[in-house]
Amino acid sequence: MIDIALEADERIDDLQLSGLYIIQRPSLFCFGMDSVLLSDFVSADKKERVCDLCSGNGVIPLLLYGKGKGADIMGIELQKDCFDLAERSLLLNEIKDKIKFLNSDIRQPYAFKKGEFDVVTCNPPYMKVGSGKTGNITHKAIARHEITCKLEDVFFAASYLLKYGGRFYMVHRPNRLADIFRCADKYETEPKRIQFVCTDVNKAPSLCLMEFVKKGKPNLVTEPNIIVYNDKGDYTEQFKKIYYGGTEK
Amino acid sequence: MIDIALEADERIDDLQLSGLYIIQRPSLFCFGMDSVLLSDFVSADKKERVCDLCSGNGVIPLLLYGKGKGADIMGIELQKDCFDLAERSLLLNEIKDKIKFLNSDIRQPYAFKKGEFDVVTCNPPYMKVGSGKTGNITHKAIARHEITCKLEDVFFAASYLLKYGGRFYMVHRPNRLADIFRCADKYETEPKRIQFVCTDVNKAPSLCLMEFVKKGKPNLVTEPNIIVYNDKGDYTEQFKKIYYGGTEK
Repeated sequence: MIDIALEADERIDDLQLSGLYIIQRPSLFCFGMDSVLLSDFVSADKKERVCDLCSGNGVIPLLLYGKGKGADIMGIELQKDCFDLAERSLLLNEIKDKIKFLNSDIRQPYAFKKGEFDVVTCNPPYMKVGSGKTGNITHKAIARHEITCKLEDVFFAASYLLKYGGRFYMVHRPNRLADIFRCADKYETEPKRIQFVCTDVNKAPSLCLMEFVKKGKPNLVTEPNIIVYNDKGDYTEQFKKIYYGGTEK
Repeated sequence: MIDIALEADERIDDLQLSGLYIIQRPSLFCFGMDSVLLSDFVSADKKERVCDLCSGNGVIPLLLYGKGKGADIMGIELQKDCFDLAERSLLLNEIKDKIKFLNSDIRQPYAFKKGEFDVVTCNPPYMKVGSGKTGNITHKAIARHEITCKLEDVFFAASYLLKYGGRFYMVHRPNRLADIFRCADKYETEPKRIQFVCTDVNKAPSLCLMEFVKKGKPNLVTEPNIIVYNDKGDYTEQFKKIYYGGTEK
């Protein structure tokens, strides 16, 4: 980690993975459990080209790199402030040759050739505009609500960027499953694997991790649920293994 | 229960619900946990007309009746031998005025008017032809594989039979979720509620219970998972409540 000047509302967080750090600005967006779970769920070997959509402060490319997943990792982020943070995290970690960020709109993915990537990842905004509290059009609102990026835009971009047989990994909320399956069908990205995340064993799943294959054949594998807390309110061993047991690169 | 003559390979099972019994013939088909879970998952008040598709030996209509769900319950079964069993269970229980069975093909549901029912239920064959062991075209094979009844046929019939806003309840396997959502979309039966069933907390969901609403608005509610066995290998309290705690009529 090199020395880097921080703004007043910025902080540096330890990713606890391969000595990587990330610059976060709570007023913009801080990464959560969903990004960590998604990076664990992704399969990508060291030769595969990976593109992360809606990268925010770049946490998923950083985690994938830290876990030794993918080569030439690319992240696309529309919001200039978030993109700048992500760029500065690359400087901080001295890995500007390992990850690239593009300040661009995934609805116009034409900086890339069709089918250029082996793997696409995305932790998109979960909520439809009009559901939940949108408030003002702040950076946080854009990260949480489908203001500049709808579910359909994500599938369009993933399908455009992926080669035939390429894999798309996404984390989302189960209440959007019908929309997710509709988009997957429309953009020929077949759902192949799904894993639900429950806060505890008595709670309904609050997140789902999904793998889609571009023009894959129908056959959906359901993984055992991830349970976050045990009945004492502590992290389960399963969750700790995912959260802290990242493969060192 | 009245006296009724049984064939050599038939038996009478106690449904442990409202004093109801069912005639089963193991060589044809015996009901399983999935039918009991589906009948618990169904919401239907005592005035609502219910139609059960692929009724087999009639277990779901019997369970719904026993739980006081629905009025004028109708069951459709294609296989004459299964239909005959179901009819004889009505005689056995002296409830021929409460439930009707029709020996008919759900692909031709035209004995009924479009939109005649408030609620449709179905525990369909789970497996595509060509997956698993089909063997000979036996009664069991027809109950398990989509030989005479494909997922799409089920959704076609449910959509035809349901009134606007009517509800369709189905139990199926999670590996068919992509197909299920595709059919739901095609036949305008919007997924509104889903509940997964896991054998134990460490196992992937092996069944899913779903509620669809004819021409409903998108909003899928995910229920807490049903866990069948605890870590000692006994039924969980949650499962016992569902399995043995049916509402008495």
